[in-house]
Amino acid sequence: MRLRRRKGTWDWLHGQRELVVLEPGNYKGTWSEYFGNTHPIHVELGMGKGQFVTEMSMKYPHVNFIGIDLYDELIRKAAEKAKQRWSQENPAEDDSDPGDGPPNLAVVLLNIEKISEVFATDEVERFYLNFSDPWPKHRHARRRLTHPRFIEQYRSILNTNGELHLKTDSSSLFEYSLNVFADMHLDMRHISLDVHREGTPPDHVMTEYEQKFAAQGLAIHRCEVLLGDAAVQKDRLRTQKRIEG
Amino acid sequence: MRLRRRKGTWDWLHGQRELVVLEPGNYKGTWSEYFGNTHPIHVELGMGKGQFVTEMSMKYPHVNFIGIDLYDELIRKAAEKAKQRWSQENPAEDDSDPGDGPPNLAVVLLNIEKISEVFATDEVERFYLNFSDPWPKHRHARRRLTHPRFIEQYRSILNTNGELHLKTDSSSLFEYSLNVFADMHLDMRHISLDVHREGTPPDHVMTEYEQKFAAQGLAIHRCEVLLGDAAVQKDRLRTQKRIEG
Repeated sequence: MRLRRRKGTWDWLHGQRELVVLEPGNYKGTWSEYFGNTHPIHVELGMGKGQFVTEMSMKYPHVNFIGIDLYDELIRKAAEKAKQRWSQENPAEDDSDPGDGPPNLAVVLLNIEKISEVFATDEVERFYLNFSDPWPKHRHARRRLTHPRFIEQYRSILNTNGELHLKTDSSSLFEYSLNVFADMHLDMRHISLDVHREGTPPDHVMTEYEQKFAAQGLAIHRCEVLLGDAAVQKDRLRTQKRIEG
Repeated sequence: MRLRRRKGTWDWLHGQRELVVLEPGNYKGTWSEYFGNTHPIHVELGMGKGQFVTEMSMKYPHVNFIGIDLYDELIRKAAEKAKQRWSQENPAEDDSDPGDGPPNLAVVLLNIEKISEVFATDEVERFYLNFSDPWPKHRHARRRLTHPRFIEQYRSILNTNGELHLKTDSSSLFEYSLNVFADMHLDMRHISLDVHREGTPPDHVMTEYEQKFAAQGLAIHRCEVLLGDAAVQKDRLRTQKRIEG
């Protein structure tokens, strides 16, 4: 994504302490304290301009959402959007300040390579990957966010009910990801090759990309992967049953 | 598929005892005797005009192939094609008779609903489903050849290394099938959303449909499913390791 650089972004971000986290490593293991409650934490890895994570945080107030991206300009765009959407739905008494955005949302500057420095074991309940870079060249496979090295990191961070939700328009990334999940013997669920085939499902929250692609009739692929210990336990019971029965 | 009915098909089929099996129930548990060897048996469920199963039988002489379909006219087409292809590659001394077709091929008249009356436990090593009817209406889901009731039948017939190989141009049938496999916790392998994306893979044998569709640039989906006991045993070891480690 090409972004115009704006002046003063860094200063602006430093002024948004209620919404923007610039040094997320400080909160490793204490994100519940950051949010001030013990609600489950859902993290979008690569939130782009933040439409998805903002809408989700407003739709599900009893879940804490963290949107992550690498570029300060994107963090700024996402923070601006979150503040604007929040103030639309929650107009201030005097309308001078758009407020701090949804209280259950944090917008975080981070290189996804470093998530294990920012989240402790069992700290997250769900990761979202929406329209991640497909890195189509074979030699870049390690950069794909569904490469086994990333899956292992997600698994170590996710709690017992942990899930990964993947959405992409890239047929090659989706194919690659399904094979990684299958090779790692992970439980999959709700595999869809064309989410909008029979109309957009109710409750389905779209990203900016998705709105554009779906309007053009492009197929959006989606699936959920169970990564928590609960899946391992079910796996154990199931195998036992198959062997005995 | 619409087929012109020809006169004398039934009589013609009765004359092809070396290639055509009209009462396959007679061979349940004794297909190795039928073929005269103990090579593994691969079965195509719904062979259509038989191009795939014929080419496979000629490419892999140490595998026994059985092509199944429901209509006598298709059985005749497939048998004619098999005899013709075989005689092309193996010209007779006098060229009056196209011969009996590949010795490792049987062309079988059968309603797939009845496969358990025709194959015994452990008798088959691989089932092929190529471009099966997608039965897109929800109320017809039970007729899809990847419905769990069929998968259970395949599983009871397949031997310890048993596999199901699925190929289709129907995105909805493929999506349905992946979800069935995932829900049944079956091991999948070589999932492809577009087999011919980077050119047709070497050794890839095509059906009549596939040749037409691939030439039009339509995406062909494919995957393999491990259905034999070997997969269950591996599953057990793997789960043990995940629990212990």
